[in-house]
Formats: sequence, C-alpha cells, structure tokens
Amino acid sequence: MTMTPAVRAILANYESDNPGTRANLARMLMQGRLGGTGKMVILPVDQGFEHGPARSFAVNPAGYDPHYHFQLAIDAGLSAYAAPLGMLEAGAATFAGQIPTILKVNSSNSWATGVNQALTGGVDDALRLGCSAIGFTIYPGADDCFDMMEEIKEMSAEAKSVGLATVIWSYPRGGKLSKEGELALDVGAYAAHMAALLGAHIIKVKLPSDHIEQKDAKKAYEGFDSSTQAKRVAHVVQSCFNGRRIVVFSGGATKGADAVYQDARDIRDGGGNGSIIGRNSFQRPRDEALALLDKIVRIYLGQE
Amino acid sequence: MTMTPAVRAILANYESDNPGTRANLARMLMQGRLGGTGKMVILPVDQGFEHGPARSFAVNPAGYDPHYHFQLAIDAGLSAYAAPLGMLEAGAATFAGQIPTILKVNSSNSWATGVNQALTGGVDDALRLGCSAIGFTIYPGADDCFDMMEEIKEMSAEAKSVGLATVIWSYPRGGKLSKEGELALDVGAYAAHMAALLGAHIIKVKLPSDHIEQKDAKKAYEGFDSSTQAKRVAHVVQSCFNGRRIVVFSGGATKGADAVYQDARDIRDGGGNGSIIGRNSFQRPRDEALALLDKIVRIYLGQE
Amino acid sequence: MTMTPAVRAILANYESDNPGTRANLARMLMQGRLGGTGKMVILPVDQGFEHGPARSFAVNPAGYDPHYHFQLAIDAGLSAYAAPLGMLEAGAATFAGQIPTILKVNSSNSWATGVNQALTGGVDDALRLGCSAIGFTIYPGADDCFDMMEEIKEMSAEAKSVGLATVIWSYPRGGKLSKEGELALDVGAYAAHMAALLGAHIIKVKLPSDHIEQKDAKKAYEGFDSSTQAKRVAHVVQSCFNGRRIVVFSGGATKGADAVYQDARDIRDGGGNGSIIGRNSFQRPRDEALALLDKIVRIYLGQE
Amino acid sequence: MTMTPAVRAILANYESDNPGTRANLARMLMQGRLGGTGKMVILPVDQGFEHGPARSFAVNPAGYDPHYHFQLAIDAGLSAYAAPLGMLEAGAATFAGQIPTILKVNSSNSWATGVNQALTGGVDDALRLGCSAIGFTIYPGADDCFDMMEEIKEMSAEAKSVGLATVIWSYPRGGKLSKEGELALDVGAYAAHMAALLGAHIIKVKLPSDHIEQKDAKKAYEGFDSSTQAKRVAHVVQSCFNGRRIVVFSGGATKGADAVYQDARDIRDGGGNGSIIGRNSFQRPRDEALALLDKIVRIYLGQE
Amino acid sequence: MTMTPAVRAILANYESDNPGTRANLARMLMQGRLGGTGKMVILPVDQGFEHGPARSFAVNPAGYDPHYHFQLAIDAGLSAYAAPLGMLEAGAATFAGQIPTILKVNSSNSWATGVNQALTGGVDDALRLGCSAIGFTIYPGADDCFDMMEEIKEMSAEAKSVGLATVIWSYPRGGKLSKEGELALDVGAYAAHMAALLGAHIIKVKLPSDHIEQKDAKKAYEGFDSSTQAKRVAHVVQSCFNGRRIVVFSGGATKGADAVYQDARDIRDGGGNGSIIGRNSFQRPRDEALALLDKIVRIYLGQE
Repeated sequence: MTMTPAVRAILANYESDNPGTRANLARMLMQGRLGGTGKMVILPVDQGFEHGPARSFAVNPAGYDPHYHFQLAIDAGLSAYAAPLGMLEAGAATFAGQIPTILKVNSSNSWATGVNQALTGGVDDALRLGCSAIGFTIYPGADDCFDMMEEIKEMSAEAKSVGLATVIWSYPRGGKLSKEGELALDVGAYAAHMAALLGAHIIKVKLPSDHIEQKDAKKAYEGFDSSTQAKRVAHVVQSCFNGRRIVVFSGGATKGADAVYQDARDIRDGGGNGSIIGRNSFQRPRDEALALLDKIVRIYLGQE
Repeated sequence: MTMTPAVRAILANYESDNPGTRANLARMLMQGRLGGTGKMVILPVDQGFEHGPARSFAVNPAGYDPHYHFQLAIDAGLSAYAAPLGMLEAGAATFAGQIPTILKVNSSNSWATGVNQALTGGVDDALRLGCSAIGFTIYPGADDCFDMMEEIKEMSAEAKSVGLATVIWSYPRGGKLSKEGELALDVGAYAAHMAALLGAHIIKVKLPSDHIEQKDAKKAYEGFDSSTQAKRVAHVVQSCFNGRRIVVFSGGATKGADAVYQDARDIRDGGGNGSIIGRNSFQRPRDEALALLDKIVRIYLGQE
Repeated sequence: MTMTPAVRAILANYESDNPGTRANLARMLMQGRLGGTGKMVILPVDQGFEHGPARSFAVNPAGYDPHYHFQLAIDAGLSAYAAPLGMLEAGAATFAGQIPTILKVNSSNSWATGVNQALTGGVDDALRLGCSAIGFTIYPGADDCFDMMEEIKEMSAEAKSVGLATVIWSYPRGGKLSKEGELALDVGAYAAHMAALLGAHIIKVKLPSDHIEQKDAKKAYEGFDSSTQAKRVAHVVQSCFNGRRIVVFSGGATKGADAVYQDARDIRDGGGNGSIIGRNSFQRPRDEALALLDKIVRIYLGQE
Repeated sequence: MTMTPAVRAILANYESDNPGTRANLARMLMQGRLGGTGKMVILPVDQGFEHGPARSFAVNPAGYDPHYHFQLAIDAGLSAYAAPLGMLEAGAATFAGQIPTILKVNSSNSWATGVNQALTGGVDDALRLGCSAIGFTIYPGADDCFDMMEEIKEMSAEAKSVGLATVIWSYPRGGKLSKEGELALDVGAYAAHMAALLGAHIIKVKLPSDHIEQKDAKKAYEGFDSSTQAKRVAHVVQSCFNGRRIVVFSGGATKGADAVYQDARDIRDGGGNGSIIGRNSFQRPRDEALALLDKIVRIYLGQE
Repeated sequence: MTMTPAVRAILANYESDNPGTRANLARMLMQGRLGGTGKMVILPVDQGFEHGPARSFAVNPAGYDPHYHFQLAIDAGLSAYAAPLGMLEAGAATFAGQIPTILKVNSSNSWATGVNQALTGGVDDALRLGCSAIGFTIYPGADDCFDMMEEIKEMSAEAKSVGLATVIWSYPRGGKLSKEGELALDVGAYAAHMAALLGAHIIKVKLPSDHIEQKDAKKAYEGFDSSTQAKRVAHVVQSCFNGRRIVVFSGGATKGADAVYQDARDIRDGGGNGSIIGRNSFQRPRDEALALLDKIVRIYLGQE
C-alpha cells in the first residue's frame, strides 16, 4: 500500500494513538476500491441480533450463511466488515487477511426490556479473530446511558493499548427524547460529539433531519442553514472535532436505491467519510447489491 | 522553574502527598503568566459533553477544533487546560509539554435522566496522555451522590499513588436542594468542604450568593457578614481547611466582561486561588477572549 | 510504654487478633493522660462532613484548620483522633507519631436522601497515613443496613489482616425505628451487640435513655433496673460480650459542661471505656475545651 | 508523645515518605529513655540464626526464651527490638504496643555455602506482627550482592507503600574484599552510602578501623584525619547523605564493658545516631546487661 | 513553554510514543538555559554508588548532601538531574517541579565481581518521585549483557505505558572487549546503536577514540575520516537512527576545563545533543562548577 496524502492527513489526526491503532485505521482506509481516498464504505451485519434471522435474511436467504457477507464485502471492494462474535467466528479463518473486520462487542435484540445492549464480545476476541477494530453502540439519552459509556471507556482503553481501533455507533434513544428527536439535527450532532469525546476513532451516526429537538439548543441554531442534507452532514462532521475524527453514516431501513445514492452524495458533499450500509445491501439479491454498492463507491470516488 | 515562596507555601500544605503529586501541583502553579504567584486560571472545555457542540461552539466555531483550546490556553498564559478524554487525545501529542492538562474523568450530558455522571476516562489514560491531574465532578445532594463519592475515592487513591493530582468539581444539585439553594453560601461552603474531606488537591466550586439555604445552618451564619462577594469567597476558602487547599471558582454562563472582571477581583480579594473560565473565554472570538483573559490575569497579578 | 494490668486485661480479650492489631489497640490505650487505665477519650472531627463547615466550626473558627484538632487532641492528652480522609491528609505528616489516628472510612452528609453513608477512605489510606484503626458507621434499622454491614465486613477483614483495629459507630436509624426508639435502651444495647458481632474492636454508641422500643423485648426487660444512666451503660457494656469489647459513648450535640461531666461519670461508673467527644470539645474556645477535657480525663482517672 | 525539635528535624529529612512511614520512624525515635533525643539504642537478636542457639544463648540461658529479649529491651528503655520471624511471633502479642519491633526479613546461618541470606520474613508478616520496620542485610562485595540489592529494592518499596520503615544492615563481605578490608574506613563508609542510595531509612554498619582498603580510594583519603574513632564515625555519617539518614553502629562480638562504653561515646561524639547492641547485652546476665545498657543510654544522654 | 521548531522536530521522531512520554521528553528539552534549543546538559550523580562516597565527594564535600546536586543543576540552568533512588528520595519533595529528574534504576559498585548492575529502583518509584524518565546502564559485551537487555526491555515497556521516557547508558565492557576497545569508534557506535534498537529515547555513550576494535568492522571503516572528535561524534549520531534519537555524551573522569570545553564543542559540531557531566561538575567547588557549566551551556548556545 502506498500511503496517499488524503489518508496521511486523516491518520495525523490520531496523534495520541499508538502505531498499532494507526495501522488498523490505515488498513481500513487503504482497503478496497476506496482505498487511499479517505472515504469508507462498511458492511455491518448485526441485523440478525437486532431483528432476528427471518426479518434479516428471509428476503435474501443466502444471507443466512456468514460467508456470504464476507464475500459480498470483498467482492464489492468495501473498506471493512462489521459483525457480532459468532458471525465473525464463522468466517474469520476463511477470509483471514482479505478484508478488515470490526467485532461488534455489544448487541441488543427485539425482546430487550430496557434501552441497553449486552456485551457479547471482547478485545481478546477481536485480537484472536484478527479484527482491526471493536464496534460498540451507545444510546445517549437512555436511562442506562452512563453504564454504556463506562463499558466503552473500559473496552476502548483496552483496545487502544493493544493497537485496535474503536468504532462507536451513537444512537440517541430512550429517556426524555421524542421519537422525532432521535433523528433531530441537534441531537445527532450532539450524539456524534459525545462519541468523539469518549475517544472513538470512527463515529457512526444516522443521517439527521432538519428538526431541532432541544429547546435550549434552538438559539444556537438560529440562522444556521440546515435546508440540505449535505449541510446537515457538514454540521455533524464539524461536531466531530471539526473533522479530526472519521464519521460514517448509516443508511437506515431498506429503501429505494435512488434514496441510497442521494444519501451517499450528500454525505460526500457534506464532507462525511462514508457509509455503513447493512440492510440496503444484504437484503437485496447479490447482483443488485453489488450494483448498488458499485454505484455508491463511484459516488464517493466522485464519478457519479 | 525557580520556586517562589508563595508556591512553596502552598505545596507545604500537601504534606501527605508524594513528590510526584507535589511536582504536578507545582507544574500548574508555576505555569504561564501567573506562575509563581499562587494564583491559577484554568481553561475547562467540557461544555460540549454537558450542553452539546452547537450550544458550546456555534457562537465561535473555531472552538469545534480541539487544538483551538490548547492554543488559547497557551497563548493566554493560563495555568492548565481541562477536558474530557477525546478532546485531550485530539491534541495531547501536538501540545505535549506546553501546558499542564487535567483529564476530566467523568461527564454528564443534557439528556441524563438522573443527577449523576458517567466515568469517561481513567488514571491510566491520564498517565499516557501526560496529564498533571484528573478532574471529577460530584453532585452533593443528589440521590447518587454516595456512588459518585465512592468513585472518586477509588480514582483519587490511584491517582495519588502514581503522582497525579486530583481536582474535584463540587456542584450541589438534586435531592432536596432548591434551585436557589444550589448557589447558596452555606451550600457552596459545605460542598467545598466535602471536596476537601474527600482528599481533593484542588477544589472547584461556583461563586456563592448570599442566600442561606439550610434551616439548620441559619444560626451558624447569624452575624456573619456576607454582604460582599469577596467575603463569601473568603468563607469558602476558610471552609477548605482554612486555606490549606487550593480553591478555584467557576464563572458560570457567558456574561458581560465587566461582571467577569468583578468576579476575579472578588476571588482575589477573598483569598481564592483563581478562576476556571470556560464559556466566558472560548465562546468569545479569540481576540476578545485573549483580551479578557489578559485582564483577568492582570487582576490576579494585582495590576488591575 | 510499660504495659499496665488494666490494659493487659483488655488486650487479652482480643484473643483472635494478630499482634499488629493488638499493638494498635495498645497504642490507643497507652496514649495520653489516660494511658494505661483502660479508659479512653477520643476526639472525632467528622462533623464537617455530617453538618457542614459553618455549623461545625463557626462557633470556634480555629477549627476550620485541620491542624487545630490534632493539636487539641495532643494537648488535652487524649487517646486518639478520628477524622475523614482529607482532614487526616492535611496534618498526618506534621503530627506523625504524636497521637494515634482513626481514619473514618465512611461519611454521610446533611443532604443525603437515603439513610446510608459513602465510602470515603480505605485500608490502604489508613496504612499510608499511619493510622491505628479504621472507623465505620452502621445504621442498624436502615433499609441499607445490610449493605453497610457487608462493607464493614470486607474492610474490617482487610484491616485485621494488616494489623489495624476497627471501630464501629453503631447508630440505630431509619426503617421502622421511631425517633424516640433510636435512643432506647434495648435498641442501643442491640446496636452495640451487633457491632460486637460484626467483629468491631471498639464500639461507639450513644448513651441510651430508659425507653424500651421493641414490643418483643419488653418482657426481657421486665424487672430490669434502668433508672440510672450508669445502669444503662452497664447494660450496654454487658451487651458487648460482657465487657470483652471496648465501648465508648458519644456525647451528642453541644450541651452544658455539667451534663458532659455527669455523662462521663455515668460511663465510668457503668463500666464503659470512655467517651468520644467531638462537638462538645472543638465547638468551645480552646481554653474552655482544654478545661473541659481535663475534667473529663480526671473523672476517668477517678479524681473527680 | 510531644515531638521534640531534634526528632522533628530528623523526620523532615524523610521528605519523600508517607506519614505512615514517618510515624513509625517517630515511634522508634520517641520510645524509651532516649525518646526525643534523636539517638537510638536497638536490641537485635538474630544471633541464633547466624551462630546457632548454644553459641548465642548458653552463656546466659535465659536468652533461649524469646520473651526474655522483649523484656530486656523494654526494661532497659531501648528504642526498638529487632529479630527474625519466629522470635517475634513468640512474643509479639504479649508485648504488643510496648516497644517498636523490626522484623529481620533475611537471615544467614553458619552452614551457608554462599555469602548470601535467605528471605525469612515479609512485609505482610511485619504488618500482622505490628512491626515498625523491616530489617534487611546486604553483603556489598559478595558475588550475590546484586541479588540481595534487588530483593531489598522490592521489599523496601512494598514497606514504604504501607507505612513501614526500612533498616539496612550493610556488611561488606565476600568477593575481592580482604578480611581486614571488611572493617576498613573507606569500605564502611562506602557500604553505608550504598544502603542510603538503596533507600534505607536507618542504616546499620560496623564501627570502622582506620585502614584504607581500596587502592583507588587512597587518594581521596589523603590528608583525612582518621586518627580517632569519633572522626571515623563522623565520616560514615557524612557518607549517609551528610547526616540526612539515621545511622547506627553495631558493637560486634562480646567484649569488655569499657570498650563498649568507649564505642558509644565515639558514636555520640562523631554524630552517629546510636548503637545496635546484641551480643554485648543478651550474652551478659540480665543485671549486668541492664547496667551496661543504662550506662550506654546515659552516654547518649550526655550524662557520662 | 512555547515550543520551538528545534524541539518540535526532535519530538516528531518519537512517533510511536504516547503523549505522556513526549511531554516528559519535552520537559527536559524545554528546561533551563538550553530549553528550546534541542541541546541538553544533564547532571548525573550516581558516582557514589559506582566509586564510593569519598572518591566522589571528598574533593568537594558539599556534595555529600543530596540537596547540593539538585540545587547545582537548577542554578546552572541544566536540563535534568539523574541519580539513584536514595539520592532522589532525599530531595524530591523539596525540589518538586523545579527540574526534571531521571531515576537511575540500576547501579553497580566498585566491588562487583561480575560485569553487571543491580536493579535498585523501579517505574513505580519514578512515578511517586515525579521523575520524567528512568535511566538504565547496559554493558554490551559483558557475559550478563543479555540479562541486562531483558531487564531494560521489561522496564522500558512499563515506563512507556505510563508516560515516562527511557535513558540508556550504553557502556561496552567485559567479555572479549579489550580495554582500548571499550572506547573504540566502531564499538561506541555499535553500543549506541544497540541502545537505540532497545527502544531508548535518550542514549548516553562515551566520546569515542579513533581506534577500530573489531576485525570484521575494519573494512566498513576503510576511507572513513575519523580524524576529529566531531566527526566521530557525527558517526555515533548517525548510528542512532541517523539522528532520530537524542544522544548525549559523558565527560568521563575529572579533567581540565579546557578539555571539557573542547569536548562540548566537538559534540555540538558533530551534531550530538549534549553532555552528561557528573564528576567534572560536582567534583569542582560550586563556583568553579557553575562557571564551567555556564561556559558549556554557552558553547551549546553557539556563543563560545
């Protein structure tokens, strides 16, 4: 891999990290068709834990096989593949060294009675499976949010000490937040900022709406132009240490391909680092998925 | 650094601490334009965690960049810079050795459903980031206050054993305390005293009003002249082991520069050790902030 | 120190303790003007934590300085000085080896919303500060009482393994207990007995009234002569393994000197081991306090 | 104990130690008839390990009983009693709190095939037995000297962290050192200096002769007046950080009382802190031993 | 401290180190009169351990007092002070925060029968004493060299994890090396290179002669111009990762001031980072030492 100026500039922002962590960030940033551009597309398959297998895979039954997803991410030329413990264990040897992996170390499920997740993997697991990073979800706003933050504080410190990177999924939820508020611009920017403050190397948030949820924040957004999604993305990027941290956006529920493409263009134009695309890829037939991912990659390459 | 009698006298009060902790206290007391005077001005930037990025930085967008705050503290000749994990990680290598740092190891946020904070950093983090101290908030009065005290008991003991100092932010809040009571003189003095009893090296409290909140305490304040802010500061200093512990006062929400100057004069005249000035500095344009901090420094130098 | 038969007899009761713990008990029993008599007067200054600084020290402002209390205990020829972490840290080096100290390892405050205390010190702290014992409060009757008992179980075991003694403040409070019941004879004796059963070396309780609180206990006290305070003290002593454990009594709120003297005489005549006198000493001017403590010491010496 | 200026000045030299260690040094310095003077006489009974019981105790068979030595040290008004594990275990409870004890944590014996000692006690033992210090022998010059130094490095660090003091017996022996050289002035001063550099609080060496052993050192001693024992003592004291560390001298093999007195006078006049007197006390009948120790104490008091 | 480009460039070479270690390197590089120049003069006082007290201090007896050396280093405006455990413990609190200190964690002595050193301090000691670095001697060539390397491997890793720097004294000695060979150019360059390879942040070697010791190396030095000391220094610097590691040179035995000055000029002209000057400073009277150090500082400042 010949390091590019774009990636070099990103890595320089991780100035407190050891070379091991930087190497793992570099691996993801230099992987696949976006390698060297500073952009990333990540395939996450934690849907089975969250929604159950049928809701996740029945529409494209090949997805019941963990190998399918490794191969999809590799064939699409993506940057990394993220999944819970069992999913990685089922393919990590076969695909060792072919694509960077992210071990999702906490997971929720549809029957959970609280707004929280269970720890379902560890840093040791990530090392033995050859992962480049751990992934962790926090629910800012939830009653258990402090507990989740304390869990990632411990795990992130451990990951950093052994040269792994940390990806935080920051999803506002629970507590006093309204349903509309979960996607509000101010809330999304705040959630991304909290992940950055917690020491995340890569921050994953949802694309925000132009709603402002918090009364106290309204004044700060007066005069702020949030009319386009690209501008809202730019504000989230700004909230992640003015771009000193990698931010990727999730696509949400399965939707039309055109909407997915527009999201990618907006992320690109707003200065975001890329997309995490799960259901919108593995819930399509493989050919369609590859076509969709090809187009997204070309968008980030500035070719679309 | 040639040690001054003023600093030597302060250090002598920390008689149970090892030379490592004393050296870190000395570093803060000998840093910047107030170095050697026994006075301190600290820049804290934990506002992003507490209020979100837009409410913290939109008014002066340069503040979205963590490097901005390191540089502001250095250029203003301040004594130390305090921030949560991610903020320090984003600049600790660039600014290594240029200004003492304080790792804020617990943090709250605007959506918290309880009166508490999450642990978001540790003593090991403080060592690897080259910090001189850890900072911790307690909420005396809150239902979870005992838990918070037990957390700082553990962390402070660990910090002291490896030569770091401990700063306690003591903010009465929650439980039976009224909103007015949070700033009451008796409450502020009590909160400062609890921080001292918990073993804090540096105590950070808010400037108290002349309200007396606790019925049981009214008698103790009979005849006490609390008519000026300087006298109220002096009472807080007295409550911190009669001046044997360093006490700094926070400026609170952004306000007019004249009010900020008057606060500094009152802190100085009451025998306080200085100010922690966050929003009143980084929420102003850099030039204004430097001018304001310059004047505050000159007030503590007795030149204004 | 030439060991006296009185102290030798007391130490013989601690037959399961290692020589380190016995040596620390001996240090307290051989210290000061009561050294060798088997009687003790202890100065506790945890009032600042419990009631705040002004209610504790405004009446005698010299008490804001931690050194004041060390010196008072030394000059009055007392047996030991007990205080929370910060108070000891502020003077432990200056007064090293001059008077045995007891680290109060849990503390409550006036704003607590539950009937419990926070752990605010540890056995490691006690060792590094050169203490002879740890002190711990339990609130028998409180909802959290089992938690408190489990905490002291752990800490006491650790203290004993490193040769420290354990002092338990046993204050019935909360739960189903009436206000009057907190001071009832049956309740006080029961609270003292629980402290003994928990493995305390020294038990601190309040002087009981002649009220009997528990219906189920009334029969057991039929015919029991509780008409004098000395007889009630004797019953508490009896409840502490028939005198095999040291029992000291607290003086409660500031009151007239004559009442304090009478209490001491009753404790002495009832076979108690002495007094813990906080507010009644440090809330008086130093001269008065020394005169009062002198008289109390002489009472225990049988000279008054 | 009312601290004296002499002891206060000595304690101030231990500026890196916690209050616990200072308190234990204070206990030894405030104990017995020399309490408060800054002088010490210590009774060591590790002879049984070194030479066997008959060579140690047959001449005064009362010495076979460990209680004998505790009582002798107490009755003679000495500063501390030092012995190996079993000797202390056999009396530590009976004499708890009556005299500071030093647990000798390594021991040799007459049949040893190397110049080294076995670890025969630990810091945990010292705590459970209520000791004020651990004692450790190094043999500078011996082939195993580095191993011994590394053992005391570990144990001393542990002792300091729990508030105990460290006494190092520094006896040049083995390797290239001649028999005469073991007692040479340059060798004794060097051995004392190494103990100080290793972090000893109290250094125990033998009284040096006026022989200079090391060729390379001869020049440094040119013009040095080593004609009297007091001057040689003064040089050893100088070699212990110019008097910043306590130095006591051993009396060596049993000899005439007058020689013992002269040694004490020379130690006193040379500025040494006192004597460790083993065989010269416990190998005499108790009455004679008490008379001898009384006279030595009076010498250090300046009365003889 | 305003960081200079010279220091910034040096710190950038320590790219795998955490901000804590970089801050400690920065502290030494920004301290004293050479602060900011990238040059250093360090005062080491481990001579007492190596040669004994009289050979070290008799010529200037003020040096028997550990405080003397702290003060000399401060008054001369040096970069750091290095000494074994006891020497630092005896002054670390008094001089806390006034000058960076280096804890020499292994030590030899004149009577050692092997070519090795004893571990006499640890990373925990360095933290509690507030040191910026640990210092360690290796003897490349000695039979025990692998053991020494394995010791520093462990200690250096521990030091780096807690933000301390590592200084390696690399002194070829023992084994097959001839006496002349110890100072040979090829040997000195090799020894420096080994220290760099072991992960040292700062490397201390002796000024090399123009002798080539190793037969196998002769060919590599054919045509190499080693005629001046500056050129030989340049070769050592080249051998330390082509200048990516700080290299300081020791002055050796006491010698004439002019020779010391010439050494400093040669080190400067050869691109070395500075001097470690022990005997040549503390074995002169204080006035002479200050004058000599002043001139050396001025040489490094390019003023002489």
